Amino acid sequence: MEKISLAADRYLVADPAQKAMAMELYRSVCALPLVCPHGHVDPSLFADPAASFGSPADLFIIPDHYVTRMLYSQGIPLETLGVPGVDGQAAPGQGNLDHREVWRLFCENFHLFRGTPSGIWLADELATVFGIHEKPCAANAGRLYEQIAGKLCLPEFRPRALFERFNIEVLCTTDAATDTLEHHAAIRSSGWKGQVLPTFRPDALVNLGHPDWRAQVDHLSQVSGIDVVDFPTYLRALEQRREFFKHMGAKATDHAALTPATLVLSPPEAGRIFQHALRGDCLPGDAARFTAHMLVEMARMSIEDGLVMQLHPGALRDHNRQIFQRFGPDKGADIPLQTEYTRNLLPLLERFGSHPGLTLVLFTLDESTYSRELATLAGHYPALRLGPPWWFYDSLNGMARYFDQVMETAGIYNTAGFNDDTRAFCSIPARHDVWRRAAANWVAGLLVRRLVDEEDAFDIMHELAIGLAKRTYKL
Amino acid sequence: MEKISLAADRYLVADPAQKAMAMELYRSVCALPLVCPHGHVDPSLFADPAASFGSPADLFIIPDHYVTRMLYSQGIPLETLGVPGVDGQAAPGQGNLDHREVWRLFCENFHLFRGTPSGIWLADELATVFGIHEKPCAANAGRLYEQIAGKLCLPEFRPRALFERFNIEVLCTTDAATDTLEHHAAIRSSGWKGQVLPTFRPDALVNLGHPDWRAQVDHLSQVSGIDVVDFPTYLRALEQRREFFKHMGAKATDHAALTPATLVLSPPEAGRIFQHALRGDCLPGDAARFTAHMLVEMARMSIEDGLVMQLHPGALRDHNRQIFQRFGPDKGADIPLQTEYTRNLLPLLERFGSHPGLTLVLFTLDESTYSRELATLAGHYPALRLGPPWWFYDSLNGMARYFDQVMETAGIYNTAGFNDDTRAFCSIPARHDVWRRAAANWVAGLLVRRLVDEEDAFDIMHELAIGLAKRTYKL
Amino acid sequence: MEKISLAADRYLVADPAQKAMAMELYRSVCALPLVCPHGHVDPSLFADPAASFGSPADLFIIPDHYVTRMLYSQGIPLETLGVPGVDGQAAPGQGNLDHREVWRLFCENFHLFRGTPSGIWLADELATVFGIHEKPCAANAGRLYEQIAGKLCLPEFRPRALFERFNIEVLCTTDAATDTLEHHAAIRSSGWKGQVLPTFRPDALVNLGHPDWRAQVDHLSQVSGIDVVDFPTYLRALEQRREFFKHMGAKATDHAALTPATLVLSPPEAGRIFQHALRGDCLPGDAARFTAHMLVEMARMSIEDGLVMQLHPGALRDHNRQIFQRFGPDKGADIPLQTEYTRNLLPLLERFGSHPGLTLVLFTLDESTYSRELATLAGHYPALRLGPPWWFYDSLNGMARYFDQVMETAGIYNTAGFNDDTRAFCSIPARHDVWRRAAANWVAGLLVRRLVDEEDAFDIMHELAIGLAKRTYKL
Repeated sequence: MEKISLAADRYLVADPAQKAMAMELYRSVCALPLVCPHGHVDPSLFADPAASFGSPADLFIIPDHYVTRMLYSQGIPLETLGVPGVDGQAAPGQGNLDHREVWRLFCENFHLFRGTPSGIWLADELATVFGIHEKPCAANAGRLYEQIAGKLCLPEFRPRALFERFNIEVLCTTDAATDTLEHHAAIRSSGWKGQVLPTFRPDALVNLGHPDWRAQVDHLSQVSGIDVVDFPTYLRALEQRREFFKHMGAKATDHAALTPATLVLSPPEAGRIFQHALRGDCLPGDAARFTAHMLVEMARMSIEDGLVMQLHPGALRDHNRQIFQRFGPDKGADIPLQTEYTRNLLPLLERFGSHPGLTLVLFTLDESTYSRELATLAGHYPALRLGPPWWFYDSLNGMARYFDQVMETAGIYNTAGFNDDTRAFCSIPARHDVWRRAAANWVAGLLVRRLVDEEDAFDIMHELAIGLAKRTYKL
Repeated sequence: MEKISLAADRYLVADPAQKAMAMELYRSVCALPLVCPHGHVDPSLFADPAASFGSPADLFIIPDHYVTRMLYSQGIPLETLGVPGVDGQAAPGQGNLDHREVWRLFCENFHLFRGTPSGIWLADELATVFGIHEKPCAANAGRLYEQIAGKLCLPEFRPRALFERFNIEVLCTTDAATDTLEHHAAIRSSGWKGQVLPTFRPDALVNLGHPDWRAQVDHLSQVSGIDVVDFPTYLRALEQRREFFKHMGAKATDHAALTPATLVLSPPEAGRIFQHALRGDCLPGDAARFTAHMLVEMARMSIEDGLVMQLHPGALRDHNRQIFQRFGPDKGADIPLQTEYTRNLLPLLERFGSHPGLTLVLFTLDESTYSRELATLAGHYPALRLGPPWWFYDSLNGMARYFDQVMETAGIYNTAGFNDDTRAFCSIPARHDVWRRAAANWVAGLLVRRLVDEEDAFDIMHELAIGLAKRTYKL
Repeated sequence: MEKISLAADRYLVADPAQKAMAMELYRSVCALPLVCPHGHVDPSLFADPAASFGSPADLFIIPDHYVTRMLYSQGIPLETLGVPGVDGQAAPGQGNLDHREVWRLFCENFHLFRGTPSGIWLADELATVFGIHEKPCAANAGRLYEQIAGKLCLPEFRPRALFERFNIEVLCTTDAATDTLEHHAAIRSSGWKGQVLPTFRPDALVNLGHPDWRAQVDHLSQVSGIDVVDFPTYLRALEQRREFFKHMGAKATDHAALTPATLVLSPPEAGRIFQHALRGDCLPGDAARFTAHMLVEMARMSIEDGLVMQLHPGALRDHNRQIFQRFGPDKGADIPLQTEYTRNLLPLLERFGSHPGLTLVLFTLDESTYSRELATLAGHYPALRLGPPWWFYDSLNGMARYFDQVMETAGIYNTAGFNDDTRAFCSIPARHDVWRRAAANWVAGLLVRRLVDEEDAFDIMHELAIGLAKRTYKL
């Protein structure tokens, strides 16, 4: 049986001198707590002290679109992986799908993850969290399933216990603007000391083109207690929700958009578009203009209430419509687009880019913008910070490209440290570990080439590990 | 006289530990046969057992636009390099151009190829194929010419002999859809055991804007025996040709296009556009829409007949019109364009991207699409595979960037291995050797950083050398 | 107190074998004179033998937008850095701003430059030019100020003395087309042997959309002695100025433009647009078309008078309008745009790209064009050369990416060596030193991987250090 070996110097560069420095730098931060200012972990996991992760397939495969997309790309249907259909039920004919069978398919195809970040995280989780030191394969699939399933029944493998074992200082979730945050309330009132904070995400409310938009607005009226009848009441209701989120511990908002377009509409025009939308007759182009305007409104509100603003643009969601229709969103079929920031952000930055009260953290799925647009913008505007490599680029090479292309121009202190951005809770330590090792490689590269001295190097290392994230997100 | 030295560890990384691993990995594949699923070698070379390569200038310079473009870029006119004019004759005033003089110009300017892939291939060919271990220069030009010319007269330097010496397992050519494949037939009927297979390339038949299109359609009618009078007969004739190619051993089709735009036209609309084109009054925009539609038709036919589909988009052909008018196409004056895949491929992928019967191999001349679009698409759609670095990126750095930017997201098994894509037959071993060394560097980088273990590493190495290519192209 | 240590092997790669080669290569060129074919140093510094650099803040901070932008990005207002307002005076309330205070702010925030090229240059200048081997910080700010201020009073720290100490062979400035070049004349007539040459930059005269355009044209009439009343007289006046610049030693022209669009207008159309502009009613789109046409006219003039043409496109100037309105242009708020060369340059290249009389040096702020467009164009057209990494990419990583992405395809001999492009005179030695070290790393990488032999390597190194620059700019 092949071994998973997690060597102490794994992922560190080949050159012995640089590796030795990287190891020392890594060691200086590897025991620091994990600061998680952005992610998609389900807060309900922590609301109930007795919550569990379910089966090994529930934990490692079914909800993780990083994993299912790779299997799908090699012709394995999502149905056979236990991915539930849009009705929330198992896919047709899969009603009594055996999770052992899902797990076996995964183990049989574990070679597909060679050289991928998912492969790194999975191996690390198996070894570090579950003490499994064999590479999954057809032969050991059954045995591994039993081992993991057995552990998942133990109290020390419940979410809260792992949260503590993982040494998570703070974990921010991402929540719809209309969310009642009942799980967050339950966590707070339970007396458990784990910090799990909500993040305000109003995407569904600002996208006029979404078929569900009108229902969302009604929902907003209901949860805010403000009857949304026009654009001013809509803004007031959003402000109310932000205040509620802030009261519940939120530090930030998050905004996904097809593009980073921003725009300042006149109040009458914004009002007119909003009224049209309420009546269900949004004109072509108006939805995009409204979304662009709302980014500026959100920046304004951030200055007023102090919530850090995050922007995650550039994904064409649900590219594979068959998959979307059958299984819904977030199934590994979102594909990046070329993205333009220089002109798109101009209206927002003209208004608020130099305001000391705004922190806007930018992310990208278009790496060609790192050195051309993002580093140059962040190296000028006081309000801007660059988020870490996102999604497909949350990987060793992706991080190396980020350090290489961003830092010289943006400067280290205009970046925002790391966030794991994951819904796979058990992968959090592995993801932070990869970042810390990649950062150590990079800083050691500065040190070995005498670009910084030792004192600088250890200082930078600490900033990258937790300092920048804590300061950017006011944690 | 300066030496060409082909050190055993050439092109391998500097770090001693990684280099030792790379050497071991390289050694594990360096004796494997060459699998060549895509290229532009002239099949007539192998049809006649007595065919020869002509003079040293015929072999190394005149037909190789990689070589002539570099000389041209430094002010050396193509006329003086013996490049024939569009009439197929030598350029005006060059009727009795001395190939020794062409060769001398090349040798005098050999320093221009320093650090370029052409420089690597040329040095390797001279040393490995012809036993020449001096760098070409003005002083040795005459002597080298005689040496090479002498060898080219020997039976062991005939194309079939070199094919065998090069250990080529299979060589796919690229052939117009209307080609009678007479050379391929001659090879098959000759009893020679070398595998030379045709590839179906219908570009001239799907580009309605080409001045020669109508003549091509008439040619199609003639060779297919199907009178092409409308869109349905046109499709039937294309299907007939594909069937003929398949019967002659073809495994794949190949499609060059300005962009990877795809589109599904309704049958009446496709028919209408086709009728207009037959009458010579193709409306503006219709040619591009028709080409986009035909890519979808070709994907449909690939599902029906099993031919692998290759797409090579993004070159603005014949950028230098003076050169085109005087010397015709493929003279080193094609320049890449920004290319967009995410939206462009959507119509085709929506229809066939998840179909188990389709294999679509994507290539690019826009490296910014590697991590943004191509790796993410190939990491999701079962039908997609990514071809190796193409043309200007078929180079050591180009390959390093490809491995770096593609593999983490696409996964190794969604790539298609290597193809040499060359019309310079004698450069084939050198090109595969560069790929195998670049791959060894990359895999050794995974190994030395403990991203994979030894067993994985050797397995991946074999996949990259021939496994992926054979499986992707069903060879 | 922390030390600035300028190790002899600084910035060289980690691998010992490659580093040893790089060191040898670097040593072979480190004593060569500095050739500076493009930059923005103020020629008045050399016109008066007694000119001085002012205070330490005048020298290192106030005029250097690389430095002030980084401080601004962290919330430090330009006012507090002594940046003068648009009226040429100190900003409101800053009339008697203490340069010691500006210097202290800079020293306190010196950590912001960690890992940036500015950080490298500043440390090198402090140590090499001023003999200061402490890192600036709050504690030593006052003392460092006195040390530097004291030196700046000495004759050996006057501009001419440093020019000689820096071993500058030739320094080209950049000058408005209407400039009288009085400082250049003063330098020439002073008998001082330092070579300071003007460069012809007509941007203000070709941008019809600029509010100041009409005044510029009147200025052109005045300095040229040609009454500009229509397009032909405008062209003649420009030709006269080019002739004057050439007479004053100019070797080149320089052109900044939003895009590299080129276009050939018919004489009547160019004339019509020009007449409209003279009357102040330039039609929408015409300004851009006129600029595009003027690039072709400038190429034509370059063929006639032999001046090398430089093109610096792709910056959206003055992105932060608040900063522009208060402090004017060139304050660190210019942001790059996606740039397209393949189609944009076609009209110019079609006409003049193969002309032996033209040298057109291309620069870019969009690194995705390196391998896709610029290297492929320069690897074909005889008239084209690629300039070195520009502005934000004039950095160790920027240079590494340039070598990596450009050289294989363009070939070394289609590049233009280095230029420092700086207005910070004292940073010139540091900038050339970074280039020479980065080049040594790259050439050593070729050597250690046996891509070139030793003889080639030292030859390439010399070319990169000064050979290519001297040949490209005919110096």
